Amino acid sequence: MRGVTSGHRAPSGRRAIGLDIGGTNIRGAVVADDGTLLAEVSERTPETSDGTTMTKILLGITQQLHAQHPEVVAVGVGAAGIVEWPAGLIRWAPNNSYRDWQVRAELEEATGLPATVDNDANVAALAEARLGRDRYSEMVFLTVGTGVGGGLVLGGVIYRGPSGRGGELGHIIVAPDGPRCGCGNRGCLEAVASGTALTRMGREAAAAEPAGVIARLGREEEDGVVTGHTVTRATELGDPTALDLFTRLGRWLGIGIASLANIFEIEAVVIGGGLVATGDLLLDPARAAYREHAYATEARPVVPVRVGTFGTDAGVVGAGLLGLEHAEDRRVHAVPPERATR
Amino acid sequence: MRGVTSGHRAPSGRRAIGLDIGGTNIRGAVVADDGTLLAEVSERTPETSDGTTMTKILLGITQQLHAQHPEVVAVGVGAAGIVEWPAGLIRWAPNNSYRDWQVRAELEEATGLPATVDNDANVAALAEARLGRDRYSEMVFLTVGTGVGGGLVLGGVIYRGPSGRGGELGHIIVAPDGPRCGCGNRGCLEAVASGTALTRMGREAAAAEPAGVIARLGREEEDGVVTGHTVTRATELGDPTALDLFTRLGRWLGIGIASLANIFEIEAVVIGGGLVATGDLLLDPARAAYREHAYATEARPVVPVRVGTFGTDAGVVGAGLLGLEHAEDRRVHAVPPERATR
Repeated sequence: MRGVTSGHRAPSGRRAIGLDIGGTNIRGAVVADDGTLLAEVSERTPETSDGTTMTKILLGITQQLHAQHPEVVAVGVGAAGIVEWPAGLIRWAPNNSYRDWQVRAELEEATGLPATVDNDANVAALAEARLGRDRYSEMVFLTVGTGVGGGLVLGGVIYRGPSGRGGELGHIIVAPDGPRCGCGNRGCLEAVASGTALTRMGREAAAAEPAGVIARLGREEEDGVVTGHTVTRATELGDPTALDLFTRLGRWLGIGIASLANIFEIEAVVIGGGLVATGDLLLDPARAAYREHAYATEARPVVPVRVGTFGTDAGVVGAGLLGLEHAEDRRVHAVPPERATR
Repeated sequence: MRGVTSGHRAPSGRRAIGLDIGGTNIRGAVVADDGTLLAEVSERTPETSDGTTMTKILLGITQQLHAQHPEVVAVGVGAAGIVEWPAGLIRWAPNNSYRDWQVRAELEEATGLPATVDNDANVAALAEARLGRDRYSEMVFLTVGTGVGGGLVLGGVIYRGPSGRGGELGHIIVAPDGPRCGCGNRGCLEAVASGTALTRMGREAAAAEPAGVIARLGREEEDGVVTGHTVTRATELGDPTALDLFTRLGRWLGIGIASLANIFEIEAVVIGGGLVATGDLLLDPARAAYREHAYATEARPVVPVRVGTFGTDAGVVGAGLLGLEHAEDRRVHAVPPERATR
């Protein structure tokens, strides 16, 4: 456990505990309603990420934060995978072994606080749409990291579909005869425009050019293994092969963006996730490919493609915000009928 | 003008005039609220399909139907292209020359009836969702004809985006390096899964096999020109080349369906348009490709892909229904303020 750190300012307003459950880390924070993080805890996701093991970790983090900040009014969770809405039951996740995990019920029972659970990219989209530098009521959000997650904001609210199974933007098909995705299918956006795709492309490049910069960095700096990070490092050295890989990756991202921007009438596309730290290296070719494939530009604007405001904090900020937004709904339901009319 | 025909039964309930403006024909009908057509008029879309010419034709059709059925309470229009919602201003269409055409204002002024104007695929989707054999509140509708149109029903209502520019499902990118689309871009669903795509593939096949069935039918039955219809005819003769073209066309359609079904949580995909008359020839390979590319089938169902109920009437039925649904909204707005509170 990384330990508890304190935020730099303490605004007024309501606060919630936000929990961000990823394939690599589980992060918890006390989140103010303006998005400020007041305290933080982080832990590695265990190898055996079944529901029982995960609940123990979540409760440990939650109790630690709750003890520090007894004023919190709710818990919000963003989790990788398919989350049944509004039940807060995580059905399935591609990179975690939990299945049919009753997260909301377990958190509410243990903490006595109203809890709300959603997909991790949905909560990150919520943070960006509500509290980002620019606020949007119509937005496509893509998080480009190990995979590609998606969140849709339509008419000011997250689109989830009736039971939370909607909004899987990383699994639109952009290269039907292309590489296999982590989900098992072929040619998903995630299969060609993610950190995993960059790793695959980097390894292919290293095998094709054993004397090249990517292969050398892999041997010298990365314990002999080429990853997406190796490719990013190689671009910093100006390696043309690595720069070309980013152009290809960004082009795929832009093709996915074009499909989504042609379907939805949006104000902007916001990109989060680890890979967006490379900035225009990824986004310039993405913007170019989107413009190339944008429909009916005589009558439909090509919208900005922007880097998100919250970086890798978007998940935990959005989780807290989700908890706050739905604490009210939950409290209304919790009022006994005889008091509900007062 | 094909003349006015009478419907076979006259149900009770409210009625509207529905107008379906396509690249080839303009159809008008008196539509009952159960979808029955009580009278019909049809006219060819003129070569010079500018707003002034088109308004004259629309008013001619509308007056003829209104005289026959003075009880109609509204006009509804479905038109190819980008329709500004709720203004009823057609901004742009790929296959008609009208631009910034004030359809709603012109119809209301001329008829004195409240008018509502929407994209043609949106109104067809409305007809299928509300009045089809199966009713849906979450549905993807694709119309496969000369092009590929799309309509989205989410939470029981048509998704249009804030100003009607949303829902362009035919222009998601499925083959980024594929053929050029009518819209000018490369690799849209419409470019590989439409009647236009079938014509292109049929001509390529005829050029590659001049002694083949497709080339022969083109020479003997179709004035020397191979079209999508030639390919359909060749499948009826069991021609393996033509059957293979349908398998390829259907596969592309299924890849588009998979992308959309992965984004939205829907009950069904409904297919309309001229090409769906070929039934399972098109839909079986589409269903197979959708299943192959469906995301997370452990936790998300593969939904049925069904042929629409209304065939080529979906546009005109949906246009009438749209008029009826929104006549109420319009009437409320039309009430003078001093009467609005009574």
